[in-house]
Amino acid sequence: MNTSTTPKNDWRSRLHEIIYEASTPAGKFFDVVLLWVILCSVILVMLESVVEINQEYKEIFNIAEWVITILFSIEYIARIVSVRQPWRYIFSFYGLIDFLSIIPKFLSLFFVGTQVLVALRALRLLRIFRILELHQYVGESQNLMQALKASQRKISVFVFAILVICVILGTVMYMVEGGDNGFTSIPRSIYWAIVTLTTVGYGDIAPQTTGGQIIASFIMILGYGIIAIPTGIVTSELSRKESSKESFSGQSCPNCSAEGHQARAKFCYRCGSSLE
Amino acid sequence: MNTSTTPKNDWRSRLHEIIYEASTPAGKFFDVVLLWVILCSVILVMLESVVEINQEYKEIFNIAEWVITILFSIEYIARIVSVRQPWRYIFSFYGLIDFLSIIPKFLSLFFVGTQVLVALRALRLLRIFRILELHQYVGESQNLMQALKASQRKISVFVFAILVICVILGTVMYMVEGGDNGFTSIPRSIYWAIVTLTTVGYGDIAPQTTGGQIIASFIMILGYGIIAIPTGIVTSELSRKESSKESFSGQSCPNCSAEGHQARAKFCYRCGSSLE
Amino acid sequence: MNTSTTPKNDWRSRLHEIIYEASTPAGKFFDVVLLWVILCSVILVMLESVVEINQEYKEIFNIAEWVITILFSIEYIARIVSVRQPWRYIFSFYGLIDFLSIIPKFLSLFFVGTQVLVALRALRLLRIFRILELHQYVGESQNLMQALKASQRKISVFVFAILVICVILGTVMYMVEGGDNGFTSIPRSIYWAIVTLTTVGYGDIAPQTTGGQIIASFIMILGYGIIAIPTGIVTSELSRKESSKESFSGQSCPNCSAEGHQARAKFCYRCGSSLE
Amino acid sequence: MNTSTTPKNDWRSRLHEIIYEASTPAGKFFDVVLLWVILCSVILVMLESVVEINQEYKEIFNIAEWVITILFSIEYIARIVSVRQPWRYIFSFYGLIDFLSIIPKFLSLFFVGTQVLVALRALRLLRIFRILELHQYVGESQNLMQALKASQRKISVFVFAILVICVILGTVMYMVEGGDNGFTSIPRSIYWAIVTLTTVGYGDIAPQTTGGQIIASFIMILGYGIIAIPTGIVTSELSRKESSKESFSGQSCPNCSAEGHQARAKFCYRCGSSLE
Repeated sequence: MNTSTTPKNDWRSRLHEIIYEASTPAGKFFDVVLLWVILCSVILVMLESVVEINQEYKEIFNIAEWVITILFSIEYIARIVSVRQPWRYIFSFYGLIDFLSIIPKFLSLFFVGTQVLVALRALRLLRIFRILELHQYVGESQNLMQALKASQRKISVFVFAILVICVILGTVMYMVEGGDNGFTSIPRSIYWAIVTLTTVGYGDIAPQTTGGQIIASFIMILGYGIIAIPTGIVTSELSRKESSKESFSGQSCPNCSAEGHQARAKFCYRCGSSLE
Repeated sequence: MNTSTTPKNDWRSRLHEIIYEASTPAGKFFDVVLLWVILCSVILVMLESVVEINQEYKEIFNIAEWVITILFSIEYIARIVSVRQPWRYIFSFYGLIDFLSIIPKFLSLFFVGTQVLVALRALRLLRIFRILELHQYVGESQNLMQALKASQRKISVFVFAILVICVILGTVMYMVEGGDNGFTSIPRSIYWAIVTLTTVGYGDIAPQTTGGQIIASFIMILGYGIIAIPTGIVTSELSRKESSKESFSGQSCPNCSAEGHQARAKFCYRCGSSLE
Repeated sequence: MNTSTTPKNDWRSRLHEIIYEASTPAGKFFDVVLLWVILCSVILVMLESVVEINQEYKEIFNIAEWVITILFSIEYIARIVSVRQPWRYIFSFYGLIDFLSIIPKFLSLFFVGTQVLVALRALRLLRIFRILELHQYVGESQNLMQALKASQRKISVFVFAILVICVILGTVMYMVEGGDNGFTSIPRSIYWAIVTLTTVGYGDIAPQTTGGQIIASFIMILGYGIIAIPTGIVTSELSRKESSKESFSGQSCPNCSAEGHQARAKFCYRCGSSLE
Repeated sequence: MNTSTTPKNDWRSRLHEIIYEASTPAGKFFDVVLLWVILCSVILVMLESVVEINQEYKEIFNIAEWVITILFSIEYIARIVSVRQPWRYIFSFYGLIDFLSIIPKFLSLFFVGTQVLVALRALRLLRIFRILELHQYVGESQNLMQALKASQRKISVFVFAILVICVILGTVMYMVEGGDNGFTSIPRSIYWAIVTLTTVGYGDIAPQTTGGQIIASFIMILGYGIIAIPTGIVTSELSRKESSKESFSGQSCPNCSAEGHQARAKFCYRCGSSLE
């Protein structure tokens, strides 16, 4: 960051400022352009997948895709060049995303049938998050993420319990309904149990026998009820954060620097010296 | 509002009072009549769309629609005439709604095939909110709106994250399932991902392959779990409002400076001295 | 209740005690028997509706239904006889339920095709609530009901807003999709909008056009998000009740009998006298 | 547990330590092996149910199933031998699960067509919970279970009310729609009502008449709204636990008797004197 003191790599540090920071006008401009190119590229991937549109504009799509791929390649190289520790960037989360965003088109030159890699191009969307991070638009989301992280273990236990319930109930339904009613195997029955418990309810598989419908009713009411659990966990976590944020003052002790005093406290809870 | 002092526009200010206010008997009567006419007009629009009913009563519907349109036109002119700043009303939210409510029928005189504008007539329903606003029936809803506004940014971040997840998972499903199982294009797969993640689950498109069903199960459990997030945000916001609003006064004891007195307290809970 | 002092209507007051109260062994026995007869009668109504079962056991079902109807008739007469103000009972909620529970079978004697009244017999299930009320099993549910009542107005505003949204979005979808894709009329489109917004998603009607699917996606995410609102309302109401119950001590002022003191209060908030 | 003092049953107490406890390396190793065998056995049960896979690998599956059954049998006998009160173990919850996990394969030797018992083998999954319990992985889930237990009665009342609503609305729909639209009997209509109220919405049965769709819309909005109730119950219960549990110690200042100190406080926040 403080690379401007070394005159040697001056163009590098300037490039770094433009690409990795958002404080200068050039940096902001770079981010806005990048944002639009990413959005265009994702819309391009979508349109390409629609058979009727693709047949008509195949040529244009191919050219546009090459333009975007080359733009992203230049950006990728610029990022590697301008950063102090290139390897660290290359193997970082966003570094890999950047690489996976450009590789499918290049591979299509040498191999046939790499269309399957098209999904990788959708990952470009993840790159938007980096831009948003720079601009602190996601300050709000950090509060959410913290609340989710704090309740991570409770939620893991909940998801695990859900899966065990679905495996057991799916097996029971396989026994009760049998293959003639669409429950052709246990994995398929478990899939049905998940569809039902989460109240999605496609209806591609539905119980036909009376016994099956009774068990299904039980699963539905269960699923309808236990949705309360993740909600309860996240809500109480968010409420706790809100209330803990509130009732504590931002003051730090003038004597021992302890923080997190209650709003009404007159003396430091750690060293006992007056806070006023 | 205080227009009654100028004797000149007396009939105007009276009209204004009737139309825009609800405190006088005439104003109340006007509102109740308007409420019923709006409801009738919306039910008329609905019935007209049912082919069997429309064929039978086409004539009656046409006459009724003209009657209502003329009534609304008179009301619209009266509103323009009686208000101080007509242009401000015309380009206000409700002014535009009022205009869009009457224009489709008049256009149908000159052009054929304006049936498509029928949807505009359903907007008349929005006019009910103005009447309710006058009568402060929606005092309750303002609390809700405030809580929603306070959590607006958190909810935007949440909706944006949902959309990104759906785009990526939709693309993956397009790769995994392919066109033969209904996932004919990426936009369609994204639509499916939204249907699944929000636990709606039409079943018009449903995964057929084992891989697709595993990914679908993951999306369902994800959707089932993260519904906790908007709920948690709104709940903690509403709870915070409730608790901050209620019970405690901002007053501090003039004797011992204790804070956090109940709103109805007359004496300090700590030292017993009068709070007045 | 204190009717035992008058020796005149002694058998009446005893009957009243057995039927309307649950404190004596006879009263408890009466309630348990009644509970089982009600459950049997409801199961009977259900089985009767299954064509295959009804054909086989038609005779038995007819006899059983007559036995239950006569039992309920005797109970109904006993209730009228034993109560002080018979008319008040007859026109009370449970009085009407009791009457509607027995009338269909008697009407079937005189009229043909009263099978349609079978639904009335299912109302017998509501009678269970009276028994539960007596035994204070529903003490818990009263807390729930109070929280619901307290948030009744907020919920009404919410349901009204939901309906308006569904009417407008339903009309828009009728315009966009048209009759060929199942959106044959505006009421049917509104029905679809409700099915989608509430995340039920039958799939009997599903959007086919791209425009329709985009609007549907919007409705789904809306429905997925705003479920947070009723949840937030009820939760904050329940939390408020919990916390108000808690942070206040059960103590009453020894001087002025004021109640609802904060747990930490040392002096009465109303008269200032010491609470200790 | 303190059986190591008696030299007589030394091998028994060692076996007990390995099987029932997780503190020694041998005990931990035993648990990890058991965990994997259980997972393998459940996956085996799943794969066996897929017709195509079963036809190909029938022999291998049979052998693998016998290996697992024998391993579980040895473990079952070891558990009986090593425990002090064998009968108490045999008739405990996990004892019965262990027995049911091995019996289907042995029965298949003597009887034909016991394939129906395959569902029992899925119960093996429940055995995972015992291992997790040992390792206190489920410490988190105990908080959840306590909150659920505390709100158990409220939830029972809620589920009972849901069932009564579904029975009554199901009967009404049977009357309104009739057998031609799929509502062939009252139990089937009740099943439909549960599918709708819980917002699952398979779509295998869907209302066709206008009256039916109006009632269905009502049920959907009801179901969409009352999901708030279990959520509210669990959330307020969890919040209450959080707030009562955390942050504040029960201690009062020895000098000024102030209460509500933070758990980590060493000095009174009001008078500054030491709390120790």
